[in-house]
This record gives sequence, C-alpha cells and structure tokens, in this order.
Amino acid sequence: MKILALVFDEYETLDLHGPIGVLGHMENVDIKLVGDKAMVTCAHGPRVVTDMDLEDTYPCDLFIIPGGLGTRKLVDDKKLLSWLYQQAKVSEKVFSVCTGAALLARAGILDGVSATTNKMAYQWVTSLSNKVNWQPSARWVDDGKFLTSSGVSAGIDTALFYIQQIRGKGEAKCIEHNTEYSWNDDSSNDPYAFQAVAE
Amino acid sequence: MKILALVFDEYETLDLHGPIGVLGHMENVDIKLVGDKAMVTCAHGPRVVTDMDLEDTYPCDLFIIPGGLGTRKLVDDKKLLSWLYQQAKVSEKVFSVCTGAALLARAGILDGVSATTNKMAYQWVTSLSNKVNWQPSARWVDDGKFLTSSGVSAGIDTALFYIQQIRGKGEAKCIEHNTEYSWNDDSSNDPYAFQAVAE
Repeated sequence: MKILALVFDEYETLDLHGPIGVLGHMENVDIKLVGDKAMVTCAHGPRVVTDMDLEDTYPCDLFIIPGGLGTRKLVDDKKLLSWLYQQAKVSEKVFSVCTGAALLARAGILDGVSATTNKMAYQWVTSLSNKVNWQPSARWVDDGKFLTSSGVSAGIDTALFYIQQIRGKGEAKCIEHNTEYSWNDDSSNDPYAFQAVAE
Repeated sequence: MKILALVFDEYETLDLHGPIGVLGHMENVDIKLVGDKAMVTCAHGPRVVTDMDLEDTYPCDLFIIPGGLGTRKLVDDKKLLSWLYQQAKVSEKVFSVCTGAALLARAGILDGVSATTNKMAYQWVTSLSNKVNWQPSARWVDDGKFLTSSGVSAGIDTALFYIQQIRGKGEAKCIEHNTEYSWNDDSSNDPYAFQAVAE
C-alpha cells in the first residue's frame, strides 16, 4: 500500500505527523513525502526530507495534503495547483487535513464535493471556492474519493476512520489501542463546529 | 525558550511530533533536534534532519526523549546513555514519552523518581531498573524535574500539561482550541492503565 504526503514550508506539524503516526501502524504500508525542495521546514522548526519532487506524479492509494500557515502563499502557486490536480487524478483516495482543503479547493479538485476544513480558518478557506459543498459541522467528511478533515488533531481521528474503511474496525481499534489514543470515531461529533457570527 | 528533542532511527512518530505540534504553538519557542547522524528515519518512513549531534550538551528549558522500537537497541548504547546523563543535567525539565523512559531509566537518570511509560511495553521498561518508582496507572507523572508520559498519543496531553505549568491554564486551553484537540487534562485518567496478569 502506497501513501504519499505533500510537504511545504510552514506545514502544520500534527496535520502531517498525526495521520502518519497511525497510518504507519498498518502492515505493508510505504509512506513517502513529496515537495518542491529536498528539505522542508515545518511550522514549528524541525525539518523533514522529501523523497520526491513535484516533477512527476506518483500513483498511490492515499494522497495526504496537510494544512498550516504555508497554505496562505501556496493558494496562489499555479505550478503547485496544476501538479496537485494531476496527482489527485492518480490517487485512489485524496485526504486533506485542516487548511490542506484550501489547496484542493483552489485547484478545482473539490468542485461539487462535500468537504470540511479547519474551523478557525473556515471563513478564509470557504471564501476560496463557492463550488465546494462546505460543511461547517463535521469532524471529517468522506465523499467518495475525497476525505477532508477538520483542523490539526482531527486528522488523527480521520486517519483512523480511513483505516477502518479499508482494513476494518478491528484494525482501527487495535491501532487506537497501540497508540494509547482516545479516538473520536463519530464524524458528526465536531467539538469545534463553525458558528457564524451575526453581524 | 529552548526545547531540544532526541531523535534516532525508528523513533515513534507521534511520540516526537505530537508534543512538538502543541509546544510549537507557544510564542518565543525554539525547537531543535539532536541525534547521532545528520538524518534520522522515524518508525513509519519519513526522515527528519538533526540540528546538532551528540558531541556536546545543550542547555535548554525542556529536553524531550521520544520512545519507539529504536529504544530496544539504544538501551545498550553506552555512548548515548552517557550523553543522556550529561544532557539531563543541563536541562531545566526532562520529558520522556512512551518508551523514552526506558533510556532515562537505563542511564540512571530516573533513580528515586516517580515515573510512567507505555502500558503495552510496561513489563519490558520497568524490568530495566528497579530504582524507579514506576506508576502503572497514570496518563503522565510530573515529579519535579522529570515529566514522564504514557504511550504515544499521551505525549500530547502531557505537553499541554507542561504548557499549563509554565504559561498557565489559559495558554494551554488556547492551544488545545487552536489544534482542535480534546485534551485529557487529568493525569490520573489513564484509559490504558497497566493490569498485571495473574500467573
């Protein structure tokens, strides 16, 4: 099983490493990082090494797009958005965490799709595309090929849902146990649901 | 504020990046990685870059020691254990996650200290030292200079506790909110408490 994750400067730490920390507990899984340079610095200092660049696409089972402050610049990066569009095509499932959905929305990948995102950045992300069926209250949204998570730590709950979907509830519960995690396994239980403020 | 984290091949992803993902939300914090080579591979594939090697010690406010399968070899690595002992001396607070406590215990750093560890690996870790006051039921244990966490995801709860300790409950709750996390803020609430099996 092949998993690819996009990385870029100022990606949010848990958006990426949260899902990897549970997905990596599955057997026979190969996780690679892709980015536009050899080394990428997360929002909190540490650097990761990329396994491939944005020149080619990589057919995979799961393609992860984290969020973070770095997405604020990248929503105007035409080269990246064009690559994202092509990479989504060769990915069995596309999984955004937090404001990673902003990149997918801007690339037109989520047109007509039900999706969610970080609730603290909800107004910004949803302003980027009116063709997405944005969900203000959902820990994650699973719409066919597209799996979109709420902010930061929600990516862990969503990754466990994905494990359940492809490998069964037993394996997801086993990984929850082995990581001593308390899984919020109900996508409709969103403690941070977006509340529009009356003007 | 200076934070240093040890990395080694096969460190557990969330043991390291979970705490960093919340600690990094504090203002004026500088997080660096230390290891015995330039690049280190986590248990799930991705590689991180170290900022410094084990030749010198680095006075810091918080020194993080993650666990993971890599600790099984490292408990016999005398050079590392000796460096750990010296590094602990120049660290204001020493924070292990999961089986990171195995390394501290073997280095003699936890002698006379109350501590906990991963409950799935509890028998192995506690067998390494009978001078530690091991706690079979605790999400984390805070004993003066030493903060030891249960397995994997417990490190996030423990890191939020540390933020509360040094910056106040308000800042910890704010970071919980910004990471859309559900903090288990009660150290005595251990869903994975070790149960000794009757023989």
